[in-house]
Amino acid sequence: MKYCANCGHTVEYRIPPGDQRERATCAQCGAIHYQNPRIVAGCVVEHAGKILLCRRAIEPRRGYWTNPAGFMELGETLQGAAARETREEALAEVQLGSMLAVVSVLHTGQVHIFFRARLPEPVYGSGAESLEVQLFDEAAIPWDELAFRSNVFSLQRFLEDRRAGREPLHFLDLP
Amino acid sequence: MKYCANCGHTVEYRIPPGDQRERATCAQCGAIHYQNPRIVAGCVVEHAGKILLCRRAIEPRRGYWTNPAGFMELGETLQGAAARETREEALAEVQLGSMLAVVSVLHTGQVHIFFRARLPEPVYGSGAESLEVQLFDEAAIPWDELAFRSNVFSLQRFLEDRRAGREPLHFLDLP
Repeated sequence: MKYCANCGHTVEYRIPPGDQRERATCAQCGAIHYQNPRIVAGCVVEHAGKILLCRRAIEPRRGYWTNPAGFMELGETLQGAAARETREEALAEVQLGSMLAVVSVLHTGQVHIFFRARLPEPVYGSGAESLEVQLFDEAAIPWDELAFRSNVFSLQRFLEDRRAGREPLHFLDLP
Repeated sequence: MKYCANCGHTVEYRIPPGDQRERATCAQCGAIHYQNPRIVAGCVVEHAGKILLCRRAIEPRRGYWTNPAGFMELGETLQGAAARETREEALAEVQLGSMLAVVSVLHTGQVHIFFRARLPEPVYGSGAESLEVQLFDEAAIPWDELAFRSNVFSLQRFLEDRRAGREPLHFLDLP
């Protein structure tokens, strides 16, 4: 951030009174512009034992496979965001279950939150951000072509838990 | 947002190609400025059966009681944010436990996430953002003077679960 979003003046990075961190601060209007982590909400989607994955049509990691997931928007709930992303990327209407994983990704300033989800009918397709969408048997999951470490983590935990018949919440911190 | 944080030109609200929502878009440099919900991370802190609460020294809700909680910052984990806020507001070093509650607060564009936490020793004090910090017996919790609905929800669920000897994760959506 170089300019004040409120008045257009240049900003300076300084520690406001009572704060402990440098913030983009406007010397003209006094506005302080905070930057905070963003939430990526998504689902591990299951239908008849198979897992629904989307091959990304957009960067980053174009061509790689991902669970349906994306940035939570203002005006929606966390679960609403996960369901909307699944609708947009996989043209699928899912039933959300328990929370599966919370992954703090420090280098991107993101928190990835995945829910378990059920696709009642095998109705899905490629949304605008997907090259293709496919149901995978567990043995066919393209582990080496998954887009993000949070995908690998969520899928591994989901499958382990499914075998064990439990639904705990898992955490992972990535530098 | 009225001005582009990247180049200082005025922004226009329009739907970028492939998007579904209006974004602050710069006609000069092309930058798209996304606004997303922010995470408030905090704890329900317990010591010897009592609950640690902070009376807010800052707006909003100055003078009201809250669980230690605040905005997650870039470069930290979700649990790190909850522990840091407790350190800053209550001068207390807690041991975080299970996740207790996720509250999507639509009108403020926030997601409040609370963890169960244990204060091993009764060492605490008033940080810069607190007027006072106090351990409350369950019967003495100032329900009518709690700052936010997410405080009420988290404390109610925490106490119910404690009586029942369980630690589930709870969700609440607030318009």
